[in-house]
Amino acid sequence: MQTLKLEEAARFLSGGDRFLILTHRRPDGDTAGCAAALCLGLRSLGKAAWILENPQLTERYRPYHEGLTVPAPLPGVSCVSVDVASRDMLCRGAEELPVALLLDHHGSNPGFAPRGIIDPGAAACGELVLRLLLCLGVTLDKPMAEALYVALSTDTGCFRYSNTTARTLRAAAACLEAGAEIYPINHALFETVTLPRLRLNAYMAQHLEFLAGGKIALCPIPLETERETGVTEDDMEDVSNFPRNIRGVELAVTFRTVENGDTKLSLRASPAYDVAKLAMSLGGGGHKAAAGATVHAGQQEAKRRLLAVMEQQGIL
Amino acid sequence: MQTLKLEEAARFLSGGDRFLILTHRRPDGDTAGCAAALCLGLRSLGKAAWILENPQLTERYRPYHEGLTVPAPLPGVSCVSVDVASRDMLCRGAEELPVALLLDHHGSNPGFAPRGIIDPGAAACGELVLRLLLCLGVTLDKPMAEALYVALSTDTGCFRYSNTTARTLRAAAACLEAGAEIYPINHALFETVTLPRLRLNAYMAQHLEFLAGGKIALCPIPLETERETGVTEDDMEDVSNFPRNIRGVELAVTFRTVENGDTKLSLRASPAYDVAKLAMSLGGGGHKAAAGATVHAGQQEAKRRLLAVMEQQGIL
Repeated sequence: MQTLKLEEAARFLSGGDRFLILTHRRPDGDTAGCAAALCLGLRSLGKAAWILENPQLTERYRPYHEGLTVPAPLPGVSCVSVDVASRDMLCRGAEELPVALLLDHHGSNPGFAPRGIIDPGAAACGELVLRLLLCLGVTLDKPMAEALYVALSTDTGCFRYSNTTARTLRAAAACLEAGAEIYPINHALFETVTLPRLRLNAYMAQHLEFLAGGKIALCPIPLETERETGVTEDDMEDVSNFPRNIRGVELAVTFRTVENGDTKLSLRASPAYDVAKLAMSLGGGGHKAAAGATVHAGQQEAKRRLLAVMEQQGIL
Repeated sequence: MQTLKLEEAARFLSGGDRFLILTHRRPDGDTAGCAAALCLGLRSLGKAAWILENPQLTERYRPYHEGLTVPAPLPGVSCVSVDVASRDMLCRGAEELPVALLLDHHGSNPGFAPRGIIDPGAAACGELVLRLLLCLGVTLDKPMAEALYVALSTDTGCFRYSNTTARTLRAAAACLEAGAEIYPINHALFETVTLPRLRLNAYMAQHLEFLAGGKIALCPIPLETERETGVTEDDMEDVSNFPRNIRGVELAVTFRTVENGDTKLSLRASPAYDVAKLAMSLGGGGHKAAAGATVHAGQQEAKRRLLAVMEQQGIL
């Protein structure tokens, strides 16, 4: 892939007049927001632009794509992917499309297009798209600014995660200055919880097991409880963080049962622990602070093995 | 009070060499963070500066004041209040002290000092203190930047509340650029919950009552449950938001029993409702989106009266 400078990417877009924007599978706020902002920005310059309809787009992001999507590629378009980390992450219907320009922030991106920008320093692809729009001479309006704000805020947990930089915050400031009303967005995306998830939280709060004087928390989630509470996969998004966010907990493990009866362990830890090492000993992997493993056994047995590994590694 | 320009306030501080910084009762992150940053900033300019020890400072903010406090006023100091909205809000021990300079962002501040700046456009007093430090020629270092970040983030719910402006985000960006490590702060202040509060959340999740097809949620909290779970007043800080943050809920009311057996109602609503009107009919008051009332009766009777008022006002 030819790595472009911002000006070169802007020149590429200026030179075309029909664009189709591609998002990734299981779309999040970053890919959805980037697509909307880029589509609106290109249209504001008099170009024809659409987003390829992503059948997995969830309700919370659907309003941002209203009036911007097409169900299938139109002839003569140049495809631009946003926040898509690899070719096999392209959304359904885009698998075979030639991507003319790639815009991303995943350092792992192999560069699956002939040209593009990969900016791993950006907390969200939205930072890159914002700079590109400004470089193109687009005047940010409220819908663009709100779409970009969704991109910036979702990838940073509303500016809480460690990937947040001064540049991210300045990009968000630019969105506010362009008219983004952030409170309704923040409330919808970060403050609300569904009733099923709230009920699952209640179950977890009552079934936590603490070890090592409260530093370690084990959180079993029976499949039956997931069914009874009615949680969806969307509701379960950040469930692994639940026990880790209890004051005093430094290492947290959630146990979920998957369809075939196996147990999925999600591990989260403060810098005092290395959960990648723990997960690897259970056949899984991940990062020092966040890792996972699947154990071919029920939750009781998975817990027994986890505790054995913790003892071996001197954690217990 | 003589309202000063930023440069005039900076000149006032430059002209002195012994300062005592005063915080407010029930100190939050804004007053605590402003005091620390201002104290460190003045010291970096070669001045003598202390914070008057605030006996109510909670554990979460105590590290920021380490090495900066004095238990009682020293002779020859000029007192500067930060984020103190009125004279009777001055912390214990400061009630009788002459405040030479007042720095605040509460529009309701009567201006209880001979001179000062009140900037109601600032989401946090930290925005004002940051600008003042820069105007003084202070080079922000990591401890100052982290103290200011605490001020900015706590008063805005980590940039989620509607008071957050582009200027707030740019101020936070400046803190990051000066070396603030924000993730540990965000985790401690915004992501962690105590076990007692988690157990209270579980109780609330299981005892919510929904009306109007789920748009209205009533959340009773018996005194007995508060005692059993062991929650402190600190843990209860944002409890009124709990039912309002359930997806679909537009009007939420929490019921707490106070020592004498009265019931305290906290009302929260989306823009579709006016809870100030509801609260007023119950002898209370507040804003359209957040209001409260105390009913001289138990929770059952308080609920009966609330429902009657809701019917009268066409809400039910």
